Amino acid sequence: MSKFFTSKYASLTPYTPGEQPRDMQYVKLNTNESPFPPSPAVLKAAAEQAGKLQLYSDPELSTLRAQLAEVYGVRPDQVIATNGSDEVLNFAFMAFADEIAFPDITYGFYPVFAELNHIPYQEIPLKADFSIDPDDYVNLNKTIVIANPNAPTGLCLSLADIERIIQSNPNNVVIVDEAYVDFGGESAVGLVDKYDNLLVTQTFSKSRSMAGARLGFGIGNEKLIADLNTIRYSTNPYNVNRMTEFAGAAALTENGYYMANCRTIMENRAWTTEALEKLGFQVLPSMANFVFAKSDKIGGEALYLALKQRGVLVRHFTKARIKDYNRITIGTLEQMKTLITAIQDILQTLSS
Amino acid sequence: MSKFFTSKYASLTPYTPGEQPRDMQYVKLNTNESPFPPSPAVLKAAAEQAGKLQLYSDPELSTLRAQLAEVYGVRPDQVIATNGSDEVLNFAFMAFADEIAFPDITYGFYPVFAELNHIPYQEIPLKADFSIDPDDYVNLNKTIVIANPNAPTGLCLSLADIERIIQSNPNNVVIVDEAYVDFGGESAVGLVDKYDNLLVTQTFSKSRSMAGARLGFGIGNEKLIADLNTIRYSTNPYNVNRMTEFAGAAALTENGYYMANCRTIMENRAWTTEALEKLGFQVLPSMANFVFAKSDKIGGEALYLALKQRGVLVRHFTKARIKDYNRITIGTLEQMKTLITAIQDILQTLSS
Repeated sequence: MSKFFTSKYASLTPYTPGEQPRDMQYVKLNTNESPFPPSPAVLKAAAEQAGKLQLYSDPELSTLRAQLAEVYGVRPDQVIATNGSDEVLNFAFMAFADEIAFPDITYGFYPVFAELNHIPYQEIPLKADFSIDPDDYVNLNKTIVIANPNAPTGLCLSLADIERIIQSNPNNVVIVDEAYVDFGGESAVGLVDKYDNLLVTQTFSKSRSMAGARLGFGIGNEKLIADLNTIRYSTNPYNVNRMTEFAGAAALTENGYYMANCRTIMENRAWTTEALEKLGFQVLPSMANFVFAKSDKIGGEALYLALKQRGVLVRHFTKARIKDYNRITIGTLEQMKTLITAIQDILQTLSS
Repeated sequence: MSKFFTSKYASLTPYTPGEQPRDMQYVKLNTNESPFPPSPAVLKAAAEQAGKLQLYSDPELSTLRAQLAEVYGVRPDQVIATNGSDEVLNFAFMAFADEIAFPDITYGFYPVFAELNHIPYQEIPLKADFSIDPDDYVNLNKTIVIANPNAPTGLCLSLADIERIIQSNPNNVVIVDEAYVDFGGESAVGLVDKYDNLLVTQTFSKSRSMAGARLGFGIGNEKLIADLNTIRYSTNPYNVNRMTEFAGAAALTENGYYMANCRTIMENRAWTTEALEKLGFQVLPSMANFVFAKSDKIGGEALYLALKQRGVLVRHFTKARIKDYNRITIGTLEQMKTLITAIQDILQTLSS
């Protein structure tokens, strides 16, 4: 830390993204990326826009927002697009939270956003089975953020439970972070016209193979979106570059390709879950593009390290309550077979 | 404003970017974009990376930072890359400013960043000729941000004056915003090893024809850069997408093309200045890719509106002290001839 760093942020602990080692080629199952490349229209749109890079992107992102509005059945003024969904989440923390609540086990960026913005936060423990108890959030009278499906557990709340939470907190915004919704969850987007306190956030990073393009979005009541734009125009009005804007719009025209990929991931998830269970793992029933699993035979960190040594990266978290687990991204069937073979090998080494 | 919007930001007035009207094709001289397209290596890099969009960008942006370090003669740990230079500026306001000073006439985002971050700020009046008096900043004992060349005036401080300001404020960071430095200014980058309180920011938006890619960077002492990374990893670790990262690195390998474009802009600036002066305009001596000019024959807003009607966009600011002026981006010679013809036409209409 330099002597110039403000005391305001002196105690800030930044978010730690998944590792990106370069010492060898890994089977990368640690950052919930899609194993499938973007569709042809995305490549075409990005290349086209690269030729016009001398011109600023459209700060209103009109083309993309119109397309998102159509696909999600809302109006463009109910949509904001951002530099990844981390950005819309940070904007929402800034705009709507004087105090915020979220589960104790969830996306690791929520406490960072809270601390960055000096917002007091309440971490509500998940139940013993790692599910969210919706009753903990009903009538809470605080701003709430819930990842649904939750990460790194993969567990889902039903739309009825989500609605109960939204309905019972009419004086606070409920942020539903649906980064992983396309892998089997139920979206709350259909509720935005019914509740003025609902903000749904999603991302192109997982189901739409665009993690490297940085594109997220929020859908909510037009007044919430206008507030988020007040923050956006006060930080970075040209927040989404023109290649990404048009690549995203193009991806939405080939939604069939991406949704078919999601179905493949879900099939591979079922295969992986079964294979892990056969090896004695406990696997939480995931609705996301990853599974959260532990074994009685080997600790979470030991498995993570042994897999890394064998060229397979998974994500291990040191937080006490989940340190026995690893979060494993679901890739192609071939990648998952490599994972299972590596685990078999590791378990064999242990017992020999 | 929704009833949920926090009182923290209730009085925030967001930045207003230059207009991007779509009703017709304009000669766009209002946002200081380059009239020249990006170079072939940029298009190639962007297209290549588009095929890998399913993978996250490198949060360390190692390739780009290595290239920037080489071109600017510094070490990679003295470089941070951001989503446009607005982002590094906002990070610097967050990290280093408990109180900040800047000129009364300068980049309009500085007061917005200050208000967003609840940082008290002092606006120091420019001299009557719109130049900065360096003595106003010597021994100021506050964080300082100076655009050099300044916008929208285009006027420069000498490197000796910049150094005097840095040297006399050893307990505060001096941010030198060099967005326009490649059009004739002197960069302070060479001073970063000498002063631990200097942060230089630059952008690919102007001289490197990449406004639409969103790429800015900061160069400073490695401890300052580490502090900025603490903020970056607490807001958006994947802040630069992979197309932009590699397009930026590619642009740096074809620096000759971009620097030749800058020389053309400087020639066109001289031509435009002379042509405007012949029409009776007062034109500030600009070292940027724009000129700031006023006429005794027509008000600033009237000229802006009359030009817009004739298909030429320039930037007019309503702030009292500069309302008689327009900021005119320097484009191709053909564009500048269109501008001058339009102004001749407007002046003729007035006198007839």
